Amino acid sequence: MNILVALDSFKGSLSSRQANAAVKKGLLNASDSFRVATIPVADGGEGTIDALVSALGGRVVYKTVCGPLRRPVKAAYGIIHQDTTAVIEVAEACGLPLVNEEDRNALSATSYGVGELIVDALEKGCREMIIGLGGSAVTDGGTGMLRALGFQFLDADGRSIGDGGGQLSRLAHIDTTHVHPRLNDAVIQTMCDVSNPLYGPNGSAHIFAPQKGASPEEVSLLDEGLQHFAAVVQKQLGLDLQDIAGSGAAGGLGAAFSGFLQSSLQSGVQFILDEVKVDERIAEADLIITGEGKLDAQSSMGKAPSGIAERAKQQGRAVIALAGDITAVEKTLHGAGIDACFSIMRGPSSLQDALNPDTARDNLAETSEQIGRLLTVKKGGWA
Amino acid sequence: MNILVALDSFKGSLSSRQANAAVKKGLLNASDSFRVATIPVADGGEGTIDALVSALGGRVVYKTVCGPLRRPVKAAYGIIHQDTTAVIEVAEACGLPLVNEEDRNALSATSYGVGELIVDALEKGCREMIIGLGGSAVTDGGTGMLRALGFQFLDADGRSIGDGGGQLSRLAHIDTTHVHPRLNDAVIQTMCDVSNPLYGPNGSAHIFAPQKGASPEEVSLLDEGLQHFAAVVQKQLGLDLQDIAGSGAAGGLGAAFSGFLQSSLQSGVQFILDEVKVDERIAEADLIITGEGKLDAQSSMGKAPSGIAERAKQQGRAVIALAGDITAVEKTLHGAGIDACFSIMRGPSSLQDALNPDTARDNLAETSEQIGRLLTVKKGGWA
Repeated sequence: MNILVALDSFKGSLSSRQANAAVKKGLLNASDSFRVATIPVADGGEGTIDALVSALGGRVVYKTVCGPLRRPVKAAYGIIHQDTTAVIEVAEACGLPLVNEEDRNALSATSYGVGELIVDALEKGCREMIIGLGGSAVTDGGTGMLRALGFQFLDADGRSIGDGGGQLSRLAHIDTTHVHPRLNDAVIQTMCDVSNPLYGPNGSAHIFAPQKGASPEEVSLLDEGLQHFAAVVQKQLGLDLQDIAGSGAAGGLGAAFSGFLQSSLQSGVQFILDEVKVDERIAEADLIITGEGKLDAQSSMGKAPSGIAERAKQQGRAVIALAGDITAVEKTLHGAGIDACFSIMRGPSSLQDALNPDTARDNLAETSEQIGRLLTVKKGGWA
Repeated sequence: MNILVALDSFKGSLSSRQANAAVKKGLLNASDSFRVATIPVADGGEGTIDALVSALGGRVVYKTVCGPLRRPVKAAYGIIHQDTTAVIEVAEACGLPLVNEEDRNALSATSYGVGELIVDALEKGCREMIIGLGGSAVTDGGTGMLRALGFQFLDADGRSIGDGGGQLSRLAHIDTTHVHPRLNDAVIQTMCDVSNPLYGPNGSAHIFAPQKGASPEEVSLLDEGLQHFAAVVQKQLGLDLQDIAGSGAAGGLGAAFSGFLQSSLQSGVQFILDEVKVDERIAEADLIITGEGKLDAQSSMGKAPSGIAERAKQQGRAVIALAGDITAVEKTLHGAGIDACFSIMRGPSSLQDALNPDTARDNLAETSEQIGRLLTVKKGGWA
């Protein structure tokens, strides 16, 4: 039997590659008649660099850039496709995990470091960029990133407005004369799994800023700032940022990428599945095993396991999903093309213990071994 | 596909019957092509009455008897085989759960109520008794039970010694002239899954009395009492209690049943599997699903799931085991004839939450449904 193993990362615990390796080990413990292929996947968020670099070959480089609160952070990005394409996760440069909870400052957090990564990649010769949105600490409409790329955001006196979404209301004029010369030749693909508009009740500030530390008053201030930003852009550049589905992603980085950098916003899962040529791999397999740390309602709405299941079903393949937590989602997952799903828990356990990488690895391997044993216990099948 | 479902109880949570029903429900959710039979099982401990009465037909009766600390307890026992056979769990009359932890008194706890149940059954016309040992609060060598049956345990002055193992050292003479007249005609089968001798380092006091509340000094006192008891019995009745494997079971009730009541001590699991005619049911099934609350090292050494697996393997049937907790036992279970085992946990959870009967029922049903889906997802089989 040919089995394709393609799990998303178990967040806080195992990378996609580590999870795949554990499943493969368990399956081969059950039967050496299995031919097991693995392919790392991601959903456009955390783990995207690792998945694409290991699936396609390439390298990970590091660049120290300006963090969300202007302290330097060492950010990783990937270079693939024979040094022509950079894979950037915005969270590496301006992610919420980079800020201690007590230091969160939704008004001043900046996406400047994302722009520095893009400049670095351009200067290394990359002409394509694959950008993963999500997990950011910012609500600056992407103005920080754009500033690093040479855009200037000026107040009524012609002086640069400060960092962060809290300053957007002061914006009077955008100067595009100093934009990085290589940017025009670059093709940027942006992965984005939300469709929120830039501002308003479903916009970036109202929906995402509270988890970035914004008080209700600050949410209002940020929302007004984003709306003012959109108005200036509309008036000066003729771009309607608000109208772009997903412009509110990553604190408005969605608007910056789609509006200023002519990037299309697309589903991270589908983009990555295409990049790693998952359909070809599925064609070679009898059974697909996918999964992620927690399979929940969100999983059936665009994330990696259900994306893989959908592709597998197009080719009539069976799909098993594994996760640490599958509470109350089995029915939903079946609708999403997952034939059977199993928790990897082997007994009562705290979440903290379950997240221990050694435990997660053992649990994945053991559960996979049991599934492998079940698949082979009766030659000729059951049905 | 014909599936036989035979789970032991999930202790503290579901009876064997309830567990079986949940698995059946889950399997039928997965496919209405399954023909699912259920059979309640037990290992000779808790759940034995329920399993035998529901497997064989019969009734449960209640009798208020003397509890381990002489407070009255309402004890259940079963009557099967057309009113000819009583099924008695000693723990119903003198079980550790009947005593609050702070009230435990290993020196004085008595098995008297067990004898009262036997008398009640004899007087209801039962001529066979099936006795489940285990879970007792006593270390009285079964003298309490025997006293209820008419044996008299007297001191040097010809007075009855008091209740409990703490008085055994005072035993001088055993009077058998008043034994219940129907006892001679009764056939008693005793289920016992330990082989401890009556006294000594592996005996009833040293191994089991500490969990019944005995201090180290009390353990010594009880051990000396049991040794003295054995010496008096040897001298007066010519019976060697110490030499019987399992005489130390249930605080010495093993010795009382085997020595005084001519009962053989036998494996509870094997006895019950024979009683419920499990081999005939296995013969009709393609797949056996068994399990219990916690599958651990003990499970592979004589308990219900491994007993069932052994029988199933004799007929070449596939066996799946389900449990709340399968931590670190998979390899052992495979050696015991279980082809694949799964935890029913669906995510991180405390033991307390997992023991909630509704949760356990849902988890069993959902896990069984996933297994059913896996079994049927590919017609013609995998291997």
